[in-house]
Amino acid sequence: MQLSAAKGTRDFLPEQMILRQRILSMIRETFEIYGFSPLETPAMEMLDTLTAKFAAGTESDDIKEIFRFKDQGQRELGLRFDLTVPFSRVVGMNPTLKMPFKRYQIQNVYRDGPLTTNRYREFLQCDADVVGVESVKADAEILALAQEVFRKLGIGVEIRINSRRFLTDLMEYLKIPEEKRESVLVSVDKLDKMPLAEVKTELQKRGLREEQATQLLELMNLSGTNGFKLKAFREKLGEGRGIQGIEELLEYCAEFGCTPVFFPTLVRGLAYYTGPIFEAVVSEGTIKGSVAGGGRYDRMIGQFLGNGKEFPATGISFGIERIFDAFLLKQPGSPKTVTRLYVVFVGVENIAWIRQLRENKIRADFNLDKKSISKALDYASKNGIPFVAVIGEKELSGGKFRLRNMESGQETELALGDFKSIRERIQSSGGFI
Amino acid sequence: MQLSAAKGTRDFLPEQMILRQRILSMIRETFEIYGFSPLETPAMEMLDTLTAKFAAGTESDDIKEIFRFKDQGQRELGLRFDLTVPFSRVVGMNPTLKMPFKRYQIQNVYRDGPLTTNRYREFLQCDADVVGVESVKADAEILALAQEVFRKLGIGVEIRINSRRFLTDLMEYLKIPEEKRESVLVSVDKLDKMPLAEVKTELQKRGLREEQATQLLELMNLSGTNGFKLKAFREKLGEGRGIQGIEELLEYCAEFGCTPVFFPTLVRGLAYYTGPIFEAVVSEGTIKGSVAGGGRYDRMIGQFLGNGKEFPATGISFGIERIFDAFLLKQPGSPKTVTRLYVVFVGVENIAWIRQLRENKIRADFNLDKKSISKALDYASKNGIPFVAVIGEKELSGGKFRLRNMESGQETELALGDFKSIRERIQSSGGFI
Repeated sequence: MQLSAAKGTRDFLPEQMILRQRILSMIRETFEIYGFSPLETPAMEMLDTLTAKFAAGTESDDIKEIFRFKDQGQRELGLRFDLTVPFSRVVGMNPTLKMPFKRYQIQNVYRDGPLTTNRYREFLQCDADVVGVESVKADAEILALAQEVFRKLGIGVEIRINSRRFLTDLMEYLKIPEEKRESVLVSVDKLDKMPLAEVKTELQKRGLREEQATQLLELMNLSGTNGFKLKAFREKLGEGRGIQGIEELLEYCAEFGCTPVFFPTLVRGLAYYTGPIFEAVVSEGTIKGSVAGGGRYDRMIGQFLGNGKEFPATGISFGIERIFDAFLLKQPGSPKTVTRLYVVFVGVENIAWIRQLRENKIRADFNLDKKSISKALDYASKNGIPFVAVIGEKELSGGKFRLRNMESGQETELALGDFKSIRERIQSSGGFI
Repeated sequence: MQLSAAKGTRDFLPEQMILRQRILSMIRETFEIYGFSPLETPAMEMLDTLTAKFAAGTESDDIKEIFRFKDQGQRELGLRFDLTVPFSRVVGMNPTLKMPFKRYQIQNVYRDGPLTTNRYREFLQCDADVVGVESVKADAEILALAQEVFRKLGIGVEIRINSRRFLTDLMEYLKIPEEKRESVLVSVDKLDKMPLAEVKTELQKRGLREEQATQLLELMNLSGTNGFKLKAFREKLGEGRGIQGIEELLEYCAEFGCTPVFFPTLVRGLAYYTGPIFEAVVSEGTIKGSVAGGGRYDRMIGQFLGNGKEFPATGISFGIERIFDAFLLKQPGSPKTVTRLYVVFVGVENIAWIRQLRENKIRADFNLDKKSISKALDYASKNGIPFVAVIGEKELSGGKFRLRNMESGQETELALGDFKSIRERIQSSGGFI
């Protein structure tokens, strides 16, 4: 049999998993400090739920790329393609949930789509959302959460905000008819990646008059502080909910200690956003582009449930796979095992000592099989185990051993029973793991 | 639209998730202290991999209950029904893995089977295995790991061991022909749940002569210490690999500080076991029956890969869903949020203080929406948040506040800036979470 994983899927061996778990537990901890609680939903959903009109925003690809199947009772099912749809279903099915409901969810999603570099058919999604708060205070808290997550991960990001309402005000000011607005915004969104002239041509192709396109691009091209941009827009557009909302959001962000940048060309694809939208973009280092994005979607859950109820909601999704990739690049020689101390018994064996090391929370392992000393040391080295102890008759009778730091080559003599010192040495070697 | 989760699947709201995560992180930590490293594989596999001859032991149900589907490239896929098959695939596909390879894997598996109480179509599996060690030292370590996991969880278990080789020796001693052995063992396995007389009738139906059945049941019915039982069997069966293997395993277990019970009637269904087999059975409290089981399967991976290589292997699978259920029963009023301190601002608002609490790793949240004080307190109480602080003008100007323990009703005055005391009080309230 030719062995392979299903196309577009990956195994995570310990050398990837150890790092992934470390990053995830850091993120989880931060989410929880901010009062977000864990939620999990099944990988499979009723196909009806996944294909509901408002489930996928305007992204018809979402629907096309669902893995579909039937159970033995001929029920139509599909694997989830995001976490927002199952979350909306959970909110709808649990009317006794106390609002505000702040949840995070870190689970795999599935897309039967074309495979390009770094696109997978199973990948982890990591979302934090709040339902039940109309105030942009909730948006500000989400932004503060994102800023804190990236700070802890040591990834420098620029957090960008904009507002759907502001974009609508702008379209109105420029007298762009409603039916053209979505396509105009799609072009505006490209300003970050495409030369101005090309965007202008595209805008005209989409039906803007030349002076409309020029005016739009002039406004969008403003640079300066948040205050400068807000003032300039206010002068042109006058008082409007859009600008006000952004100012209010920025004020709350300041209280939360978060410093986003007002970014008028930020659009984000999904039509279900109703207020602030946001994105975190890496400002240095190895990964390019967006590593988190989200916004307010006050109408989506209500429309999805179709019961006339309102569910103000806002949230963010972290591009966790890109974050993992960035770390894997940064991390030279990931360990291939969680073990920190590898004990090589020679001639004798003292499993009770291993037991005591473990009772003292030292991740210790020993030569369970019949390797030679040199092979055992090679095993430790190849697996990236940072400390080794070779224990023979002499060590057991004398009660002392040499703890070898595999990286520096340094050896320290310690008493077999001095678990405190052993643990301190092993932990102080540091490293990300 | 009628909202529902797919049949046989469950959502885990925070009140379940918080506990599940707590238990899992305890188990993870123990696995890692014992030198087992994390592995994850995709939910979907090539259907060929899942239906391979040796993939499912003798359990044809496993194959029948696979959720099957095709991708857009018409490749036949299925959702995994266990973690052993993907593990075997990973071992086969990664010839550079250093042996012994000790991995744990905690992921969902899927079975499109009939639904009875506590049977689900998506459920968590939790396995720890070692490949590459012939010695029963590895089995002893697995048993020690299991004992430690249950000790940490506070679940009293009896760990039972037996050996496939011993059972074979016994069948040979009783001159039971090879073709009858599997079915005889199926009956023997029932001795724990069925009256002796019924098992005897069944054995005779399966083709044993009356004296064979009587002799078998007499031997199986021995009670006493491990030493007593081993001596009795040795007197009858003479020296044999089976008994020797059990003795050796028990000796290593003692070194690891693990105290299993030799249980001659333990059979375990899967035909792929080749040596020691084991099971953990709850000896007290709310859950009945097995909460972990496993054994040695030296030939399975090699047969699965079909490349003539040998992969001695042993492992255990924890009945993690039953363990969760037991805890949910034990845990009165699980919290519905991770938040430990709920701050109710009245008239004023000081988000900077919330920020500082969070910087001090206190899981603090506050009234983001416009609830009345009594509704905000109700929110905290309904969600099981253990501490509350009501903060108004007076508190902010005086720099002091009253920290209220929601369970005892006790209030303590603390300085707003004394984060150390705040954290200590909030943590010392204890509880499982």
